[in-house]
Amino acid sequence: MAELGERKAIELIWSALEAAPEAYPPPGDDVAGWKLGDGLLAVLKTDMLVASTDVPLGMSYYQAARKAVVMSVSDLAAKGVRPLAVLASLGLPRGITERELAELAEGLNAGAREYGAYVIGGDTNECPDLVIACFVFGVCRENELVTRSGARPGDILAVTGEFGLTYLGLKALLEGAELSPKVRERALKVILMPEARLEAGLALAKTGALTASIDSSDGLAWSLAELSRASGVGFVVEELPIAPDVAEEAARLGVEPAEACFYGGEEYELVLTVKPDAWEEAVEAAERAGVELKRIGRATREPGLWLRGPDGKLRPLEARGWEHFRA
Amino acid sequence: MAELGERKAIELIWSALEAAPEAYPPPGDDVAGWKLGDGLLAVLKTDMLVASTDVPLGMSYYQAARKAVVMSVSDLAAKGVRPLAVLASLGLPRGITERELAELAEGLNAGAREYGAYVIGGDTNECPDLVIACFVFGVCRENELVTRSGARPGDILAVTGEFGLTYLGLKALLEGAELSPKVRERALKVILMPEARLEAGLALAKTGALTASIDSSDGLAWSLAELSRASGVGFVVEELPIAPDVAEEAARLGVEPAEACFYGGEEYELVLTVKPDAWEEAVEAAERAGVELKRIGRATREPGLWLRGPDGKLRPLEARGWEHFRA
Repeated sequence: MAELGERKAIELIWSALEAAPEAYPPPGDDVAGWKLGDGLLAVLKTDMLVASTDVPLGMSYYQAARKAVVMSVSDLAAKGVRPLAVLASLGLPRGITERELAELAEGLNAGAREYGAYVIGGDTNECPDLVIACFVFGVCRENELVTRSGARPGDILAVTGEFGLTYLGLKALLEGAELSPKVRERALKVILMPEARLEAGLALAKTGALTASIDSSDGLAWSLAELSRASGVGFVVEELPIAPDVAEEAARLGVEPAEACFYGGEEYELVLTVKPDAWEEAVEAAERAGVELKRIGRATREPGLWLRGPDGKLRPLEARGWEHFRA
Repeated sequence: MAELGERKAIELIWSALEAAPEAYPPPGDDVAGWKLGDGLLAVLKTDMLVASTDVPLGMSYYQAARKAVVMSVSDLAAKGVRPLAVLASLGLPRGITERELAELAEGLNAGAREYGAYVIGGDTNECPDLVIACFVFGVCRENELVTRSGARPGDILAVTGEFGLTYLGLKALLEGAELSPKVRERALKVILMPEARLEAGLALAKTGALTASIDSSDGLAWSLAELSRASGVGFVVEELPIAPDVAEEAARLGVEPAEACFYGGEEYELVLTVKPDAWEEAVEAAERAGVELKRIGRATREPGLWLRGPDGKLRPLEARGWEHFRA
């Protein structure tokens, strides 16, 4: 398994599953869904947080539980779907205290309520490790869900927010790297209290300007590889979506800004392709939702991922991401 | 936590959660649900299987995964709701092999397909223990869902199937108790390849004869206590739903048949209350679904659980069940 990697494991599992005629979108998108009839789709998503691999030192039960919900909300956000209800299956260590459990429950509640959803059910079990499996449910019109597969050559490649902070933050938390107080504070906030871009995702989906969308939870490079694979296009990245002070800080630590930007993971930004003639409309919709939509490149007919360097030349962008089992 | 027990833990969690106006039935029933409008209800259920506490020796990956799905299907069965889609969040030990993973996926698929549902999504993670969190989704008319809370004094108390086998089977698997080959075979089948009473649950709910329903996954006594609490009635059990040879085998091992019958757990039978004037209709509906509906007692105005002994006298029935953390 350690050699197999998460992607191969997932392929192996899918190959054993019979396909449902009522399921949409096809396997491999950010969410699953079930056609309810009349063009309505029940949207379903599950994500599991395992303390020993997903929870960095210093993260509280409240933060871990809240994050477990936000992870799944982020996937619905990328599809333009509002989350309604959350269920949580908990694996709890024998030694968990009443106070820690209360904190955990408050974190679940906060993760749902911040996005208008409610936790309406769950299950508790004893488990050697803390495990929080969240399940998020929403409803949308089938033709309004933004898949990973609609990007076309010429589309504008765009992202919300800034990248690179989690890379530096995890370097600080796991390796003791020293960050400037300002960057450190922002990085820890992103890692410990991540936010899903729900309002922006909903507003952008509503414009009809998007052709494909994914969240960046496995890192920006990984998200681009997934969009590329699902849509059958390539991408040229012309501009790094990294804040100047984060790029500086990375360089000071001997990390290439592009490395921090593309391979951080655990960021919950949106990675989108936009019809060129609807770009302004998309920018305004995001702005009304309080988010800056940043153009970073374009989709190309030629497959592959490319990054334009400071010298103007294109370099191939490696499609690695943060994978469980390979860490 | 070990002292808190699962029930207290669940109460603590619920007290931190804000209540959703669209949620139905209220917290504490077998499933959660979300009102879709027009009288339709999205029915949601999650259940987590943790290998170190839930998987007895000798159970294969296929069987464990299949059981993880069946556990949740059984809850929908008790509510009279057909499962449509399943999602599975997997915590996988680092050492799991490709073959074991394929087996696991086949078990998930079988658990869903046997009941007409499909596995349409999931998540994989690394975890020190094997963890399978299943989420099951179905749709029903809100007024057709059978809750735990509708039992009225005078209602007939009934069950499907026979009880006591898992008690003996676990005694054999965990303590090495020797069973007769015939009982052993049946007991292992129930433990390793449990079946949800879906067709009977659907047929019975359709008759309108049921006033309350629950599955018996935490043991028959526990199920009665839950129905009693939710409905505000008591129960008198007049007859043990245990097969004669299982009762004999229990006695031979020095176990009271009532003990084996009420405190086994991990059985996925239905425990129901039925309107007296609709009893025949219920029996016939169950029969058409291939299941014998067995009358075991009645609901009473006085609270509490009582068992009529061989001497004709009522003895109190202890409401303990199989609880995680207390095992």
